[in-house]
Amino acid sequence: MPQAELLETFPNPHPGRDYEIAMVCAEFTSLCPLGGVEGDATDLALLAGGAPDFGTIRITYVPDEQCLELKSLKLYLWSFRNEGIFYERIVNRILDDLVQATSPRRMTVIGDFNVRGGIKSVITAEHGT
Amino acid sequence: MPQAELLETFPNPHPGRDYEIAMVCAEFTSLCPLGGVEGDATDLALLAGGAPDFGTIRITYVPDEQCLELKSLKLYLWSFRNEGIFYERIVNRILDDLVQATSPRRMTVIGDFNVRGGIKSVITAEHGT
Amino acid sequence: MPQAELLETFPNPHPGRDYEIAMVCAEFTSLCPLGGVEGDATDLALLAGGAPDFGTIRITYVPDEQCLELKSLKLYLWSFRNEGIFYERIVNRILDDLVQATSPRRMTVIGDFNVRGGIKSVITAEHGT
Amino acid sequence: MPQAELLETFPNPHPGRDYEIAMVCAEFTSLCPLGGVEGDATDLALLAGGAPDFGTIRITYVPDEQCLELKSLKLYLWSFRNEGIFYERIVNRILDDLVQATSPRRMTVIGDFNVRGGIKSVITAEHGT
Amino acid sequence: MPQAELLETFPNPHPGRDYEIAMVCAEFTSLCPLGGVEGDATDLALLAGGAPDFGTIRITYVPDEQCLELKSLKLYLWSFRNEGIFYERIVNRILDDLVQATSPRRMTVIGDFNVRGGIKSVITAEHGT
Amino acid sequence: MPQAELLETFPNPHPGRDYEIAMVCAEFTSLCPLGGVEGDATDLALLAGGAPDFGTIRITYVPDEQCLELKSLKLYLWSFRNEGIFYERIVNRILDDLVQATSPRRMTVIGDFNVRGGIKSVITAEHGT
Amino acid sequence: MPQAELLETFPNPHPGRDYEIAMVCAEFTSLCPLGGVEGDATDLALLAGGAPDFGTIRITYVPDEQCLELKSLKLYLWSFRNEGIFYERIVNRILDDLVQATSPRRMTVIGDFNVRGGIKSVITAEHGT
Amino acid sequence: MPQAELLETFPNPHPGRDYEIAMVCAEFTSLCPLGGVEGDATDLALLAGGAPDFGTIRITYVPDEQCLELKSLKLYLWSFRNEGIFYERIVNRILDDLVQATSPRRMTVIGDFNVRGGIKSVITAEHGT
Amino acid sequence: MPQAELLETFPNPHPGRDYEIAMVCAEFTSLCPLGGVEGDATDLALLAGGAPDFGTIRITYVPDEQCLELKSLKLYLWSFRNEGIFYERIVNRILDDLVQATSPRRMTVIGDFNVRGGIKSVITAEHGT
Amino acid sequence: MPQAELLETFPNPHPGRDYEIAMVCAEFTSLCPLGGVEGDATDLALLAGGAPDFGTIRITYVPDEQCLELKSLKLYLWSFRNEGIFYERIVNRILDDLVQATSPRRMTVIGDFNVRGGIKSVITAEHGT
Repeated sequence: MPQAELLETFPNPHPGRDYEIAMVCAEFTSLCPLGGVEGDATDLALLAGGAPDFGTIRITYVPDEQCLELKSLKLYLWSFRNEGIFYERIVNRILDDLVQATSPRRMTVIGDFNVRGGIKSVITAEHGT
Repeated sequence: MPQAELLETFPNPHPGRDYEIAMVCAEFTSLCPLGGVEGDATDLALLAGGAPDFGTIRITYVPDEQCLELKSLKLYLWSFRNEGIFYERIVNRILDDLVQATSPRRMTVIGDFNVRGGIKSVITAEHGT
Repeated sequence: MPQAELLETFPNPHPGRDYEIAMVCAEFTSLCPLGGVEGDATDLALLAGGAPDFGTIRITYVPDEQCLELKSLKLYLWSFRNEGIFYERIVNRILDDLVQATSPRRMTVIGDFNVRGGIKSVITAEHGT
Repeated sequence: MPQAELLETFPNPHPGRDYEIAMVCAEFTSLCPLGGVEGDATDLALLAGGAPDFGTIRITYVPDEQCLELKSLKLYLWSFRNEGIFYERIVNRILDDLVQATSPRRMTVIGDFNVRGGIKSVITAEHGT
Repeated sequence: MPQAELLETFPNPHPGRDYEIAMVCAEFTSLCPLGGVEGDATDLALLAGGAPDFGTIRITYVPDEQCLELKSLKLYLWSFRNEGIFYERIVNRILDDLVQATSPRRMTVIGDFNVRGGIKSVITAEHGT
Repeated sequence: MPQAELLETFPNPHPGRDYEIAMVCAEFTSLCPLGGVEGDATDLALLAGGAPDFGTIRITYVPDEQCLELKSLKLYLWSFRNEGIFYERIVNRILDDLVQATSPRRMTVIGDFNVRGGIKSVITAEHGT
Repeated sequence: MPQAELLETFPNPHPGRDYEIAMVCAEFTSLCPLGGVEGDATDLALLAGGAPDFGTIRITYVPDEQCLELKSLKLYLWSFRNEGIFYERIVNRILDDLVQATSPRRMTVIGDFNVRGGIKSVITAEHGT
Repeated sequence: MPQAELLETFPNPHPGRDYEIAMVCAEFTSLCPLGGVEGDATDLALLAGGAPDFGTIRITYVPDEQCLELKSLKLYLWSFRNEGIFYERIVNRILDDLVQATSPRRMTVIGDFNVRGGIKSVITAEHGT
Repeated sequence: MPQAELLETFPNPHPGRDYEIAMVCAEFTSLCPLGGVEGDATDLALLAGGAPDFGTIRITYVPDEQCLELKSLKLYLWSFRNEGIFYERIVNRILDDLVQATSPRRMTVIGDFNVRGGIKSVITAEHGT
Repeated sequence: MPQAELLETFPNPHPGRDYEIAMVCAEFTSLCPLGGVEGDATDLALLAGGAPDFGTIRITYVPDEQCLELKSLKLYLWSFRNEGIFYERIVNRILDDLVQATSPRRMTVIGDFNVRGGIKSVITAEHGT
């Protein structure tokens, strides 16, 4: 399962000002759910069944008391690597986990996924706007 | 005829949040109506008469109860392949069929068609905005 | 003279919905007026005097009862080929002719002309907005 | 089946000079063979099974006595539209048919096909070099 | 007819050195021959029948005694404007006329024409290589 | 000094419609003031001291009674060539001179200057908005 | 420490008009804080521990009484070169220092930093909007 | 371990002609060896230690008796997903495995890997040239 | 006149190795000869007659005993600013002056000039190849 | 001084095959020699005098017995950060140090430096070709 407990924060150095932080991870990968069933697919036999998905995750937020620690975000996104999970759930899950960890003034998460079957998908979810 | 019955949906995993799903199919093809008459042109003799059209279909929507299943969308768009049909009707037809299938909170369909006779056409239709 | 009588229309297949049609012709050409006098320059001797102009014409409109027939638009734009005419008049003339032919809910015409004397010109005119 | 008999030629207007003609068709489409069996798939039920393929065909040749007539090439390439056929065979087949029709001094055919399963394919075949 | 007599030259200021001059005209236009018959199509009625062609002409040469005067080249290329003429003949004709006018050490002419019927054409002819 | 008297106008052919004219000159050049002192630097000795500046001037306006004559604008912009002048003054000066010459309904002037000392500058000034 | 005292200004030549000045420095570099401790890292041994950061700083402002002198801005940005400092602090610090130096009507500072650990960061802070 | 046994081939449909097949997979991922030790890292705890690597694999070959089956290549490249392995070994290993499976007339494998520590790596290995 | 005496050199720090130095100046400007007569046009009245030319100068060389000093090259190229001179002479003149100043093992000079009258010109001259 | 002792190698895993490794570091920075004197400029006062240089270093080599360790290369390139040094020496010095460290079969080093004074410089040096 994606590991929200990996997320760490540090105190916002300028809480008196509304300012925006945008982070882009162009190296996101997870797995397409095998037979439509979401879940951990670390077992290589399972991996051979479900197809890898690739995409870019774009996160934009206005911090309140806490900022998201960059390296912990990287580790958190890595934890989707062997997870069978749908696009819609990935984006909403990341938004829920990051809002839970940082209580931002507002936040947007965009999942921009590579072409599958000739169709490209981009999912956008927002909190607090 | 384009086959709206191919469209399938699945329950929106986050109905409590307004979020946006965008899908882009850069491999759309249909036929120019032969002699201005729209209809099925599967017959190869007919095909040799009407010219193939190519374009990109862009769909953006906010799901309500149901999300559009990606593979079924692909099959639905394939069903225009041997259909003689005008650009204006393609875009409005896709919008009508997808609204009927998913009852979205709002939806936009854009048909971005390749140059014909030195002129490029882009048609945009919206529902619920 | 540009031949507005070449323009043809067909009934809007979805008059109940406001939707937008955009057409781009990247192969527009006319002539720079010789000695500043606008008019027909089909005579080759005249042509050798006035310089050819090249540009892209972008038309965007929301149809009401009638849609613009694509092939007739092409022929209409061709009719500027040997016409000596200023940029400002080209764009306003096309807008006037297309509004006259289709009575759209709204329409924009943009003339995007190639560099002349190191300066590029773009003219934008709107109707009904 | 692809219809080589559609190909037409006209006499090379400058046979005394080796010069090169390149043609690019960015709107090629055929079908992936259903169950690995190549053949005609005009029947829509069959079409729903095999996936459409899309690509760009690039042809470069030095004419000898005959040049390839452009419109007939277009019709010939359209005749692959409902054919279930492998990439390797498409490119070699086009090269064989064009060499047969025009007896060029040399010719190259490149098929540049869209991503399938995350992998893009480009096939290049030459004659007389 | 294209007017080779418009071409002018000036003495090469550095005949002792082999150096290369490349000129690119992205604003070439002529007419598609009406009914396949090449010839002058200045008459607007004729123009309404044959379609305009657009393209880029690229000329590269090593001058010997004479250099090509830039403005005269522009006027020469303009003289194709109302001529019904095939792509293959355009390129070979320009090469013949420029070689005749400048007797270069070597010369290449490339005609890079816009998409027609979904197919782009590029013709390359060389002299003295 | 920049020569505003070079600017010429012609009567707006469509004064009854608010439409926009945009002109882009990518070949603007002036001089950096030598020792911070603005002024004419035609003297070559002076030129060797102050560095040339290069940039793109973008002008957008809605004409009222008069349109800006294109060739006169070109000559006006050329008159900055040997002038030592700061970026901020260039843009405000051009805006003042063009407003004076054409009394537009609204006008924007943007000076987009090349990198100097690793820093790029873009200045934007508006009138009547 | 970043040296705000390097910043110089000159009187705004057009204080009567709200106009915008944008400056982009694509050659910003600082150091990642070693062990998370910010501070001067001029000592080369220290440098070998903390990683260099690279990015682009974008500054946009409407001047009031004073404009920012370009060369002094360059020197000020250079003074971050051997400073161990977090992204969030860099952007807020630059904004604070430039507001202090120029008292602008409004100002925005954007720090657009290169990929680290597969993640790109962009920080945006504003004053007076 | 990467699973060469997943690779499948089919008979070359045109063995009498030397022609080239190029395949590009832009979605390759493996793991950086943890502590410099290569090996399987499917265990998620291990994954949290070694960093994922991402890249594009480009394969070009001239087939002899056998062609590489596209879907089996996809599955083979997926089998690197949880493998801790150095860039140099990835490229040479893929080349060895593909040569073993297809005995091509010649083959090139290029691994084009994303930036790590500010440095991008591209490895190229060839067989039979 | 262009001032070759501005060119300075410094001793090649690695004369024992053939290595290549390429320099690109994208901010070259001179004047079109007024009435076809080349010469100094610093006088502003003259400048208003001859049109400014703009282009990019690309210099590539293998140094022998001396390297070209970068700042002196900049000043040398500036000395063409108010010179009325043809493209062909500019490129051959720069090559002659730089060869005279540095005695390189080989050198290439390319002048890539902006569009004039719809035609772009690129001149290439080489020494010692 | 640049610290060649930071460079580390590891045994080439495929010494039996000539294969090529390319590495690109787009984040190289050093200092322009102050007053033309090369040397260490860690002292901030000195830094304020000499200007920072930025560029991209491209290294391509065929390994023999040893491969260059990626992280050690990164640290080595960082060691130029506060060094006052000319472009020509940077490239030749990096080539010398890398050849010394890895004894490659052949190696090329390219230094692609940002614009200074309106002129971009690219230096290319090779070993063993």
